[in-house]
Parts: sequence; structure tokens; C-alpha cells
Amino acid sequence: MAADPARSEIRLSHMEVPKASDVLATELRERILSGEYVEGTPLPPERELVVQTGMSRTTVREALRILEVQGLIRIKAGRAGGAFVRTPGEESVANSLELLIRGRQIRLASVHETREAIEPSCARLAAEHRTSEDLDRLEAANSRIAEADGLDEFLQANVDWHVGVATASHNEILTGVMLALSRAIYTATNNEGFVDDEVRAITVRAHRSVTRAIRDNDPDAAVRRMSRHVRAYAAAALEMESRTAIPVGAEDRFLR
Amino acid sequence: MAADPARSEIRLSHMEVPKASDVLATELRERILSGEYVEGTPLPPERELVVQTGMSRTTVREALRILEVQGLIRIKAGRAGGAFVRTPGEESVANSLELLIRGRQIRLASVHETREAIEPSCARLAAEHRTSEDLDRLEAANSRIAEADGLDEFLQANVDWHVGVATASHNEILTGVMLALSRAIYTATNNEGFVDDEVRAITVRAHRSVTRAIRDNDPDAAVRRMSRHVRAYAAAALEMESRTAIPVGAEDRFLR
Repeated sequence: MAADPARSEIRLSHMEVPKASDVLATELRERILSGEYVEGTPLPPERELVVQTGMSRTTVREALRILEVQGLIRIKAGRAGGAFVRTPGEESVANSLELLIRGRQIRLASVHETREAIEPSCARLAAEHRTSEDLDRLEAANSRIAEADGLDEFLQANVDWHVGVATASHNEILTGVMLALSRAIYTATNNEGFVDDEVRAITVRAHRSVTRAIRDNDPDAAVRRMSRHVRAYAAAALEMESRTAIPVGAEDRFLR
Repeated sequence: MAADPARSEIRLSHMEVPKASDVLATELRERILSGEYVEGTPLPPERELVVQTGMSRTTVREALRILEVQGLIRIKAGRAGGAFVRTPGEESVANSLELLIRGRQIRLASVHETREAIEPSCARLAAEHRTSEDLDRLEAANSRIAEADGLDEFLQANVDWHVGVATASHNEILTGVMLALSRAIYTATNNEGFVDDEVRAITVRAHRSVTRAIRDNDPDAAVRRMSRHVRAYAAAALEMESRTAIPVGAEDRFLR
């Protein structure tokens, strides 16, 4: 069929229109990330943002909620309330990794592989950069593991030690990833059958020997000992899992 | 002063009231993450959620926006529109890591330390689990690096190869972290002075030799070669940075 010259040849395809709240959120996000608004800076009140932007109150409120969820502002209610700029923290990385781990029903093996990748590096960096406060935190977690009364206390102290090593690395990215993994580890090993007296004694010994290498500023020993510990723990946890088959992320309390 | 018995001793401290939209978002999030609603499931229309929950339309809309920002639903406009359940992806991990890297003005050294921690492990797992499609993707990226016309093309192909190795590991957590880092790497090395013909030739050679180890299912060689490559690249990039001092995250296009 010949084209009808009277009919326009112009065709439009499906178009995406950016949402007003995304436009505003993006603008504010850029200003926060560029350092223009520092931590604690109050944003203008909602009604002021409405006037300045010509957007509706609902749109302004939505934009602020988006930034809150992303950890870029803190919204306080009440008379001295309002929206205040926050420095994004490891928490938001941990939260998004948790969504990934839970939502995708990610294999427990993936969590262990990631630990085996990053924990030895955390130990090495910790041996290089640890402060005396870092050491105090590690020693405190070790004492709590040794004296733990019940499974929850043991698991929490165990996780605190591992996050403590990451924190002592003074690398914020590795710390964020470890924080996220630690919750998965907590859940995956939350099993009375796994944490018996032997596992506990082995854990205490392994942690003490890694902590010693970190205290002595001995990166090579720290890497070697942490690798061995993480691999052994992973092997024991996987064997336990194959016996009891608890899916990672099945626990309600996992996302906190 | 003696206590006045007529005055109540009850004292309340400052209380946090959960926001209605958070309550609804949490409820929907749990159902998505538990697998009750699978990928593609349409949520009830807004007005239906208003009726079911007794919450206001603004609250319902805010809850849906929160889930959208977290990558758990996709909101489509128009007649066949609505909110549809999404499986959380590596993208949201990458986004939150970017907020951390940019918002904290994280040292370039932290990015390199993290790469040195995870990329050798990605290469090892890739050598164990790669499919032939994974290999095709790596080869394609290598060809594009060799033939790249201009800096942008080179950097994009370079980043694609590194993300490709992570993807070939078939570990979603490591892939999410690499995706986030790759944008930081892109930005940090976006410098004509850094990417000269020599850097390009060395990169092509290193990638080919890692790719070969992955193709040959040789995990040990893959780890060794990737470690060497990442360390050398980091050293060169840090030296370049000390000459030109570009802060990571100074680029507008970094957050995409």
C-alpha cells in the first residue's frame, strides 16, 4: 500500500516521564553528595520547598521520604523537627544487600564465598591500621563469646567480632559489606545443633589468634589465620545446613 | 524538696511513632521477600489498598514509592499501569554503595583495596563456574578494549570486562559489589593522561591472560593473574591521582 501523503509519517514511541518527586529528590541528592549541604544542615521546611519549587506538598513530601529511605536525610517530627542532612552510612549498603540476599533466596554458599573473599583482606588491613580502640572492641567481643550464655549471645558476640575486624580495617566499603553479611551469617547459623561447646571453643581460639596478629601488626599472619577460620566455619555451616536445610533469609528478624 | 504525693511520679520519655507509610511498606516488603508475591505480581490498585488498610491515599502512595526506591516494585503509569513486584537486583546494592562512596568522599584507596579483596575471588569462581555465554561476553569486552576509539569507549569496555568476570562467578553478592565499584573505577580513571597507549596495551594483555585461565577452568592461574592486574592498575591509578588529584565522586555522571 502506498503511503498516503495526507497522513503524517511522524510516529511517537512509548515515553517515560520522570516523576516530579524524582526530579526534586535527584536535585537535593546531588547537593548533599557534592558536599554543598553538610551533615546536620536543615533543609527548608516543606511549605518553603513548595513555594521555591512550585511543586505540590505531596510531591515535596514524597521526595523527602525517598531521600530518607536512601539514608541521605533524617526527618524529625515535632516542634524542633524537619529534615536534616545525613552522611550516608554503611547501614544503607547493609540494608540493600539484605534485600538482595533475602529477595533472591541467595544460596548460603554465596554468602560464604563473599566472606572468604573479603574477610582475609579485612584482617590484613586491620593489622595495618588498627587503633587501640579497635583492639579493645575485638577483645571485648572475644570475652563475650567465651562467656556467652545461650545461642543468641554467642551469635551476636561472634558477629560483633567479625564486624569489629572490618571496622578496624578503616575501609568503609568493606565494613558496609561485612555488616550486611553478618546478619546473613547470624541467621544461617542460628541453630542449637550447630553451636555446640566444641564449635564455641574452636571459635574463641581462632578469634584470639587472629586478634593477636592484628595487635602485633602482622598482616600476613592475620590473612592466613582469618582465611583458615572463615573456610572452616563455612565448611561446618554448610555441612550443618545440608543436614537441617534452613534457607537463608527464612527468618523474620533477618531484616532489622 | 519532698515529693508531692498528689503529683504523679509517672514520667514519659521522648517517643518515636512509626510512620504509617513505613508500617505499610514493611508489611508489603515482608510479603515480597518471603516469596508470597512473586516477580510480576500486580499489587492491588491504590484505591483498593486505601480501602483494605484504612490508610490515606497519600500514605499508600508514599509506601509504594519507598518500595520502588528499594527496587522491590516497579510502578507503571497509564491504563495498563499499577505496581508490580520485582525481584531485588544487584542494581540497588550498586546504588547504595555509590551513595556511600560519593557521600563520604571515600578515598580512592578504599575502592582499590576492595577490588584487591574481591576481584581475585571473582576470577577464581569464574574459572570454576563460567558458561560459554560468560566467555563470549568477556571476549567481546576485550575486543572492544583493543579497538576502543577514545577514552569513554575504553573505560566502558574495561568496566564491562571486570563486571563480566564477576557475573561469570555466578555469585550475586560479589556481582552487586563489583557493579558498584565499577562506576567508581570508571570515574576515577576518566583521565586522558592516565589512559595512554601503553596502559591500554597492558590492560588488553592482562585481560586476555585472565580470560584464558577462566576459559581453561584454571582457578589458581585466574586468581594469580587477576591479583597482579588489579594491583598494577591500582598502583598506576594512585600515582596518577597523586599527580592530578581528582577526588572520587567529583563527577556528576557518577550516579546514574
